[in-house]
Amino acid sequence: MSEKLEAMRLELRRGILILAVLTALRQEQYGYSLRKALQEVQIDIEEGTLYPLVRRLESYGLLNSRWSNEEGRKKRYYQTSTKGEEILEVLKSDWQQLNQSILNISEAV
Amino acid sequence: MSEKLEAMRLELRRGILILAVLTALRQEQYGYSLRKALQEVQIDIEEGTLYPLVRRLESYGLLNSRWSNEEGRKKRYYQTSTKGEEILEVLKSDWQQLNQSILNISEAV
Repeated sequence: MSEKLEAMRLELRRGILILAVLTALRQEQYGYSLRKALQEVQIDIEEGTLYPLVRRLESYGLLNSRWSNEEGRKKRYYQTSTKGEEILEVLKSDWQQLNQSILNISEAV
Repeated sequence: MSEKLEAMRLELRRGILILAVLTALRQEQYGYSLRKALQEVQIDIEEGTLYPLVRRLESYGLLNSRWSNEEGRKKRYYQTSTKGEEILEVLKSDWQQLNQSILNISEAV
């Protein structure tokens, strides 16, 4: 069972990650600092999952990005775009509705 | 964008569905009455999605089921099993943690 349970837990988490990333990136971050910011709120996400997700969101136009040269090292900074903010509002509202649904069904049974 | 937005909204919803179904089935239901119970809490899910999910959860041993003959029609009733209750507790706790994470990150930025 534990394998299937893990799959279900991942499924639960996956949908939330986009919401978490778009929210976190209202403050500009580069890959590593974003990962740390998520860890601080107990969302532990591997680089191999986070970075492709960030690039995907950027390719959708939900993030702006820029290169910065810091102490000879190039870093790519990301920030939620105006379009990203709009999508975030939709997802947040869905999330709140889903929360309410789960609460209501818990009370009903 | 609307197609990608819909995909993201679905992803957000998908993880929750298992939680919703295991919760709803603490009260015994057959397919149609389960669908109605979910609709009552604003979770509108097509038969083509719900019924395979229910069969999947049953195959994992998370639901018990029995056939009932009502007015000449056979109905299959489902109810969350002891194992299902255990899994539900894990997923619920994950869900609460994720909720807290999203709240915390919203406050941090």
